[in-house]
Amino acid sequence: MTQKIPYEDLVALTQTILEGLGYPEEKARITARTLGEADARGVYSHGVARLPFYRSRMESGNAFPEAEPEIVWETPVSLVIDGKRGIGPYNADFAMKECITRAERSGLCFATVRDSNHYGMAGLWAEMALERGYMGISMSTSNKLVLPTFSSERLLGTNPLAVALPAEEGAPFLLDMATSAVARGKIEVCYRRDTPIPPGWGVDRRGELCTDPHEIVSLLKEDAPWGGLLPLGGMGETSGGHKGYGLALLVELLSSSLSLNEWRPRADAEHPIRVAHFFGVLDLKLFGDPQKIRSHVSRVLEDIRKKGDSPETPRVYIHGEKEREQRKRSLAEGISLDEATREILRNLRKELSLSENSFRI
Amino acid sequence: MTQKIPYEDLVALTQTILEGLGYPEEKARITARTLGEADARGVYSHGVARLPFYRSRMESGNAFPEAEPEIVWETPVSLVIDGKRGIGPYNADFAMKECITRAERSGLCFATVRDSNHYGMAGLWAEMALERGYMGISMSTSNKLVLPTFSSERLLGTNPLAVALPAEEGAPFLLDMATSAVARGKIEVCYRRDTPIPPGWGVDRRGELCTDPHEIVSLLKEDAPWGGLLPLGGMGETSGGHKGYGLALLVELLSSSLSLNEWRPRADAEHPIRVAHFFGVLDLKLFGDPQKIRSHVSRVLEDIRKKGDSPETPRVYIHGEKEREQRKRSLAEGISLDEATREILRNLRKELSLSENSFRI
Repeated sequence: MTQKIPYEDLVALTQTILEGLGYPEEKARITARTLGEADARGVYSHGVARLPFYRSRMESGNAFPEAEPEIVWETPVSLVIDGKRGIGPYNADFAMKECITRAERSGLCFATVRDSNHYGMAGLWAEMALERGYMGISMSTSNKLVLPTFSSERLLGTNPLAVALPAEEGAPFLLDMATSAVARGKIEVCYRRDTPIPPGWGVDRRGELCTDPHEIVSLLKEDAPWGGLLPLGGMGETSGGHKGYGLALLVELLSSSLSLNEWRPRADAEHPIRVAHFFGVLDLKLFGDPQKIRSHVSRVLEDIRKKGDSPETPRVYIHGEKEREQRKRSLAEGISLDEATREILRNLRKELSLSENSFRI
Repeated sequence: MTQKIPYEDLVALTQTILEGLGYPEEKARITARTLGEADARGVYSHGVARLPFYRSRMESGNAFPEAEPEIVWETPVSLVIDGKRGIGPYNADFAMKECITRAERSGLCFATVRDSNHYGMAGLWAEMALERGYMGISMSTSNKLVLPTFSSERLLGTNPLAVALPAEEGAPFLLDMATSAVARGKIEVCYRRDTPIPPGWGVDRRGELCTDPHEIVSLLKEDAPWGGLLPLGGMGETSGGHKGYGLALLVELLSSSLSLNEWRPRADAEHPIRVAHFFGVLDLKLFGDPQKIRSHVSRVLEDIRKKGDSPETPRVYIHGEKEREQRKRSLAEGISLDEATREILRNLRKELSLSENSFRI
């Protein structure tokens, strides 16, 4: 086992790399923190392994590190933000801070953001509201990977949806889910390990259930729109695939339509996707005494965690709990990264002629 | 094939029955319309076949037809309503009307309702917002039928979630979904037809996947909490069962915790569930020009409906579309009810000594 990397060192290195690639300091700082937080929580699909992807969006002229988001419409309880095709995590941070400021006065605020870019783990933005004891909401569109129920083409993203609700003693509810059956990253794990994927994750170019990760990974890279990931609930309507499709479509409409983001049913090399987000912040005071509400939330979560548990089954988790535990371990012991991710970091460090770090990668 | 029943006749008969059972006129009117609308849309699980269930809640002292909901907390953008264990559809109608009135002034409003009862199809309440061109949200807790991921007990309801978003030409987006893999009603259909249920819908008392509808229907009637329905995404985490569980828990927290509804991990004959709801209304003006937003929504929906379609697969539907088409047919041609439902109506009519109708049941 290779040495673990201290959390702050990983974030600092990532920031230096991003600055080396042309990100201004503040944008590099926020993006590095966003990626490092995902790794610290064990959500490696949204961690520093994404650096080449962030870089390619910039180098292909789809992400502009200098761009500053602009508020193009506002009321005391709502905002429309033009992300100017800037950096996703920076736009998300900006939007949530604006929502929180307005929620302090109005009790709540919603923001929709057009022309942005990949913003990292959806849950991180919902979670920002928790610091003030508020409820937070975060959604985003993404690359076209998912087939609507009975569709032969992939027309929707994995469109994640996150909601954070405060509870007592730092144990909030934090739902953070792709609206597809699984995230692309899980299929890539099977691809690297050369193990079949369970039926219900994806379909091939002819629309048949596919258990070969190589075929799915390969078709997702094509401009042709056939085949792709299935929505939560799987294929057809039997086990609720139309529900996952509905959730993905809901995220698309709240993010894209409310912000009048450019809409295309297909994305290709010439017309890459323009990412849109939706955020919300609500003060619990809207519904009475925040202390009583937090305590009620904790009671529900505690009962579900305990009553459902039995010695024969894996532990019952509350959403956000696993990642919180992993984060605690990562901050104490450092972060484990796989060899492929370490190589990405080593190569970038070398290419950008950055000095060797005090820690081994 | 028996004769179809005209929509208005079915609603009128249902209202007369509810009045005969002790509902005041206005409550009977709203409840009858709620049940009749579900049948008109082909959502028979929430139609007039529910009359015996509504009756039993009343006769067991869990639903009080005389109760009037009371606003116990309010701001210009939020409400907490005590449903006083009154009639679900009446409380829902009251809450949505209050939200709409406030949204006319403030642009948006959210309401949480405690101590209510079954409110019918979740989507009907979200849809109320569409009449003003607003976006609508509706959620509710329900009987404990669903197992959290890895739980041995059923601790959550099928907790439906509905969102309505206006588009052009009367073709809105209307997502209305139980957060379980399937609604209880679908298992009851297999029960009546004596056909196995697909794996992924439910588990038996030992926590094993179960395809026998008789076993599931029977265990759901027991006070013992073992076994039940699976969340959307099915068993375990492989295909995202923890996401469906997360959505069910989200609905529980927004409905129950924000309203400080009585929470019990288990329900039984002595401690039947107290139902809680959550509603929201948002004016599109919060995000700019409603006409432009509606037109964007329509473009997205139209593209998905058309691009995904292929001659080899079933039609790609937008959420709410099937039910809208069915409703149009029902209003023109009348509503088909199965024999079991007709018998419910005949028996109630006889028991309450109501005069025979001009239409055959």
